Amino acid sequence: MREVKVSIFGFGTVGRALVEIISERPRVAGVEIRVESITDRSGTVWGDFDPLEAKEVKENIGRISALGDYDVYSFKPQELVEEIKPDILVDVSSWDGAFSMYEVALREGVSVVTSNKPPIAEHYDKLKELAEESKAGIYFESTVMAGTPIIGLLRENLLGENIEEILAVLNASTTFILTRMESGKSFDEAFKEAKSLGILEEDPSKDIDGIDAFYKAKILHWVAYGEPPEKTERVGIREVKDAKNVRLVARVSKGEINVKPRKLKENSPLLVSGVYNAAIIRMNNLGELVLKGKGGGGRVTASGVFTDIVKAALKFPSPR
Amino acid sequence: MREVKVSIFGFGTVGRALVEIISERPRVAGVEIRVESITDRSGTVWGDFDPLEAKEVKENIGRISALGDYDVYSFKPQELVEEIKPDILVDVSSWDGAFSMYEVALREGVSVVTSNKPPIAEHYDKLKELAEESKAGIYFESTVMAGTPIIGLLRENLLGENIEEILAVLNASTTFILTRMESGKSFDEAFKEAKSLGILEEDPSKDIDGIDAFYKAKILHWVAYGEPPEKTERVGIREVKDAKNVRLVARVSKGEINVKPRKLKENSPLLVSGVYNAAIIRMNNLGELVLKGKGGGGRVTASGVFTDIVKAALKFPSPR
Repeated sequence: MREVKVSIFGFGTVGRALVEIISERPRVAGVEIRVESITDRSGTVWGDFDPLEAKEVKENIGRISALGDYDVYSFKPQELVEEIKPDILVDVSSWDGAFSMYEVALREGVSVVTSNKPPIAEHYDKLKELAEESKAGIYFESTVMAGTPIIGLLRENLLGENIEEILAVLNASTTFILTRMESGKSFDEAFKEAKSLGILEEDPSKDIDGIDAFYKAKILHWVAYGEPPEKTERVGIREVKDAKNVRLVARVSKGEINVKPRKLKENSPLLVSGVYNAAIIRMNNLGELVLKGKGGGGRVTASGVFTDIVKAALKFPSPR
Repeated sequence: MREVKVSIFGFGTVGRALVEIISERPRVAGVEIRVESITDRSGTVWGDFDPLEAKEVKENIGRISALGDYDVYSFKPQELVEEIKPDILVDVSSWDGAFSMYEVALREGVSVVTSNKPPIAEHYDKLKELAEESKAGIYFESTVMAGTPIIGLLRENLLGENIEEILAVLNASTTFILTRMESGKSFDEAFKEAKSLGILEEDPSKDIDGIDAFYKAKILHWVAYGEPPEKTERVGIREVKDAKNVRLVARVSKGEINVKPRKLKENSPLLVSGVYNAAIIRMNNLGELVLKGKGGGGRVTASGVFTDIVKAALKFPSPR
């Protein structure tokens, strides 16, 4: 049993759910996963601590630095990897600037697992190059559709296919608002309800204006074509009047992505509700493939991160 | 670019479609795929021949031994690997006894890629053990749902999950008959139509009595749980009277598989038609995941075999 040391960066819902999943199955596929450090805004706990105790403390006191009897470090993110030297850096934060931290990690030969979208959407080419140079890996299943493995599907499977088009509903908050509008509410009423239920991002524009879905579409474009899109379009749901069978749909094809509200056919697999995401992948041999699953939630997102940790530990190749 | 030598065993629709796909993309993920030999019932062509020419000859004359200017060998299957020493043995035949050939291959450190169900359904534990001993790999994506990657999904993804249940429609021939019955035909009429269209296996009982779906369910059980099922049940579609919304459904849960006709809800993702297969995977964190795609056809099956060849070439780990 080979031990792999994991540094978890970010300790919100996903990070805490991840600690639970790791404690439920610490040994998998010949690998023993050891949580070496956890970082939140208050600092980094590092060493021989109990991750489940850290989770309790975070949930009860609100900051990991309150964990008693352990040294708490205040590393800068870029220092983290150099000080701790984990095998795998796991970013479950929502820090837009995490790219600089990944750079350091990959240069040091430390694999990166992340559920954080912007660094992948903006810098995948650079990260892939760094990973290839250092024989480390970069894994990001949960950036799109959370733990529903659309990245694994595209990156490690379907290798005899030209991906002709992907159509996908990737943002559950807009689905919530649109389905509320389908039952007769106005956009403003549905928006307020979503906000009060805590369904929206801190900056609701990321959901409503399609920014979140756009990042995800960009990541799918990277994985399907190995390059960034040349032509992009993004329209949110603010202007939707008749929401009947409308969902915020991302369309990805070679060189092009767009995100906009689309009226779907009654029997479309994209006509999802609740936290479900769905994707239709059109290909030259396989024709139409549909993948549908949950696209958010702590354990759902942490589950994809967990798979990625195992892949990183096993040095999984990424053929596409 | 590393060259991998592939021996193709079986040269029916799938084998010929595979040769097409390889010729369309001979270089992928740093690997150059070279067809070193092709075997059909008439013999083995081996060496510096053009696989597309072999395909032409097979289609026009019906046997690969008619390929001019090349030596044709009459190896026994067990001799094939020892004589040719390929990197990967690709079985796209329907030879029930192919296990003995895989044994030889794996013992020699030759990875096996197969779309042939019975050897995997019956002997997966033994094959996995041999593969682990020799550091070769055994890949079988196209045994279930053809190129629609349910094996990749279960074997290399969803690693943080307990697979609680899989419900799946895995046999398109019975779907054809049942949908014909839905439009008012009797079982006998629909059966005759399927037979005349060449949709059924040579021995139609394999479709009608659920034998094909049963093999597939058994393979899913192996992948999900690493052991064979203790309790099994198999009921075909001969006795179906009212076919409305009925499909032949395989159910897989820990220790148990059954295949039988089930009446589905109007909006069930399993209510497929044509060559589509569908699966619902129920898990502890991710809840319900749906995968739907084509489950048969030459290129559709060959596409999954192609992905497996790349995985075998890259020595892909199989964590589950």
